[in-house]
Parts: sequence; C-alpha cells; structure tokens
Amino acid sequence: MINPNYRLLVVSTSTIYGSGYLEYIREEVIDFLKTDELLFIPFARPSGISHDDYTQNVVNALEPFGIKVSGLHTYNDPKEAVRNAKAIFIGGGNTFLLLKTLYELGLVDVIREVVANGVPYMGSSAGSNMTGLTIGTTNDMPIVYPPSFNALQFLPFNINPHYLDPDPNSTHKGETRETRINEFHKFNSQSVIGLREGSWLRVENGEIELKGTLKARIFKPNEDAIEVESGKLSATIYS
Amino acid sequence: MINPNYRLLVVSTSTIYGSGYLEYIREEVIDFLKTDELLFIPFARPSGISHDDYTQNVVNALEPFGIKVSGLHTYNDPKEAVRNAKAIFIGGGNTFLLLKTLYELGLVDVIREVVANGVPYMGSSAGSNMTGLTIGTTNDMPIVYPPSFNALQFLPFNINPHYLDPDPNSTHKGETRETRINEFHKFNSQSVIGLREGSWLRVENGEIELKGTLKARIFKPNEDAIEVESGKLSATIYS
Repeated sequence: MINPNYRLLVVSTSTIYGSGYLEYIREEVIDFLKTDELLFIPFARPSGISHDDYTQNVVNALEPFGIKVSGLHTYNDPKEAVRNAKAIFIGGGNTFLLLKTLYELGLVDVIREVVANGVPYMGSSAGSNMTGLTIGTTNDMPIVYPPSFNALQFLPFNINPHYLDPDPNSTHKGETRETRINEFHKFNSQSVIGLREGSWLRVENGEIELKGTLKARIFKPNEDAIEVESGKLSATIYS
Repeated sequence: MINPNYRLLVVSTSTIYGSGYLEYIREEVIDFLKTDELLFIPFARPSGISHDDYTQNVVNALEPFGIKVSGLHTYNDPKEAVRNAKAIFIGGGNTFLLLKTLYELGLVDVIREVVANGVPYMGSSAGSNMTGLTIGTTNDMPIVYPPSFNALQFLPFNINPHYLDPDPNSTHKGETRETRINEFHKFNSQSVIGLREGSWLRVENGEIELKGTLKARIFKPNEDAIEVESGKLSATIYS
C-alpha cells in the first residue's frame, strides 16, 4: 500500500550515455515537478564535487526551463528549508555519505513529513536509493559509516539503480549485480527493483508506473528474478 | 611500520577465470601456510552458500595437498578455536556479513591477538578487506549493518580486491572503481591498494611483497594513482 499523497520520481541515473545532465528526462521532470521552485539536496557529492558545483549543474539543467533551483547547503536552517520546499530533488553520488548527512542534520523525519504531505520528491541514483526501505542494495562504496542503513522508506521495497546485466563475455570473477542482490535476499525479505539506466518510477495516487523504454528486473527472496515492461506495476509485483 | 610477527597472504580473488578454486595460487598457499592444519572462516558466504558447503570447497581444494581444513562454524567455542589455530583462512563473499559476524562472535580481538603472535593469516577478497584499516573500499553490497566499518587493521592502508580498470568502451554511467576510490579519499586519508585478480600481497618480516604477474594500483588522497610492479613495496608507496 503506497501512501496516495506521495508524489515520487525515482530515477535510475541522472545522465545516460551521450546526453547531458538530466537531458533525457527533462520533459518528465518538468511535468512531474509542476512547480517553478526546486530545493536541491547535493549531499551525495558524486566524485567528491562540492555542494556549490553540484547545485550549479542542476541550475544549468533546469533554470533555462523556468525552474529556480536552490541548494539545501546554502540555508542556515536546513530543516526549515525542507519544510518550506515546493519540491525536493536529491541527486546521485555516494549513498552512504548522503544518508549519513541526512541523519546528521536531522532531515530524515522532516523529509518524510513533507513528502507525506504531497511535496514532490525526485531522486536520481543515490537519491533513488533513499526512497526504498534501506540502502542495502546500493552499488556504492561505504566511504563513511551512517548511523543506520534505513532510508526514507516511501516505498515498500528496495531500489537498485544503474541496474546492470551480467556481461556474458566477462572474465572478471567479482560478483555480478544479480549475485549481489541474491546475497541481499539471504538476509532481507523485501523485493528489489533493478532500474536500468534510462528507466524511472513515477509514483502518484498510490500507484507506481515504470517509465522509459526498458524493462525493469524484480528480485524476491527464493524466486527467480522477473522482467517487467514499462507501465503500471501491480502491487503483487513488488510486495 | 608493519608488525614483524605478521605473516599474511592477502589475495585479490580465490579464483581466476578458467581455473578452479584456489588452483592458480595453490603452490603459494602451501608454501605460505607451512602447516598441515587450517582453520577456515566461512562467514562471508559468497552467493549465500552455507558454511558447510563453503568449507567443503576449501577441503576439496587443499586436503589433496596434505592440509587438513576445519570450518570455524563447527566449533562450540569459536574464540577458543581461533586461539588454537595453526593457520587461519578467511574466504571471500560479502564483506559486511563477514565483519558483522566477526564482531558478533567477539572474534575481532582474538584474531588480532593470534596473528600478532605469528599465526599465518590468509584472506581472499572479503577476507583481504579484513586485513586493511576499514571495509570502506569493499565492492560488496551492504546487505547487513555491521557495528563498525573498522577491520582487523593488520595493514596501515585499505585493500580494494578484484580491482577493475575502467572499460573504455562502456556506455554505463555508474561510477568506475577509480571514481569510487577517489570519493573514498574525500573522507579518508589512508592509501588504498587496488589488487587486480591474480595479484596478492605476501607480508613477512615487516615487509610487503606484491606477487603475481600484474601491477597493482595505489591510490592516495589528492594524488594521481600510480602503478607498481610486483616485488617488495617500499613503505613510502603505501604510507
């Protein structure tokens, strides 16, 4: 059961090959946000980029289309800034760093509150991991130690962004993504939705729609993974 | 400064492409262990394999060569079993699960003690992550939440096993291994040794030797990564 107030855009990747930041998904973002003011949360710092530089990337991508972007790091009172937000975007980067920072600033509960009140939430990559139950299916390195792996928990499953199919020609012996998710399911019962690059979930009115042209891969404990086509997902698929 | 009592074999991968479990490194393992009795720690459970099945793999690989293998999970008192071990091998799998289990069973300090007393320690993959300062450069998914990311800390740096060079033809937008390690260095100061599959470190008499035919890649904060050839590593390389 998804809270019908939730408005979520859960994006596998901000950038697809050969295209600029958020370029491939810009129309969807604008249609989804339905606002001219966006609060950007830059804490995941991809490649260690500064909060300012990261926010500037979002400004460059969205301001030409009439969306004013401010970085949460520029506010003296980040909780208050979240409470006043018309829409929230958490960008990708390192999931551990992102979640640790949200806990340290006391933002986890505040973000949950405003999103439960209907404020649109968009996440990409690490920001999409936040929408699931835990960060237990992130692809990132544990570069810092968060006080918990529990995420924002809007959705009753976990996200695996940048989902990657095994390369049949690989000679590498490190685990494939699917093997890693199967290991997760030895110790965790929630479904995992593997979102390939170019896919996203749009959540509104208590319903989840898989968008983009690709299929998504759904993993459950003790079952073979299945592929789902884009379109509305029935609750039996993910619960 | 490496404790001169330490005898460590820090292996990137147990298995290389086209070869059986431990096969490519068997002679080195036998030469290193210098014992006919090995205590195997199966807690990392690759692909969720049972402790029994995992131990059996090691039995099959080493008992034909005169090394008797017992699994730590079969002992009523695992601390006592570690204290009595003639040699220890921690196998690969999930690094988070492994470290959490070591903490839960109170084994971290006991393993440190016996290794400081000269008991040979061999690790592969996740078992090699244990020899560094933290698990902050593991490649694994955080499928369980350990009480700390601090590892066994025999070595004054971190290991990245299964080190993988970027694929110049890739269209995938997930972070490369090098990008991930650079993100680690925004928040951590220790060096990271990326061990490619087929490489290992042998540590004896306070010295570290890189073995196998491949180079290793050394990362430090705010410096370009460097490649080192097999052979003795000078302390300036990793400190």
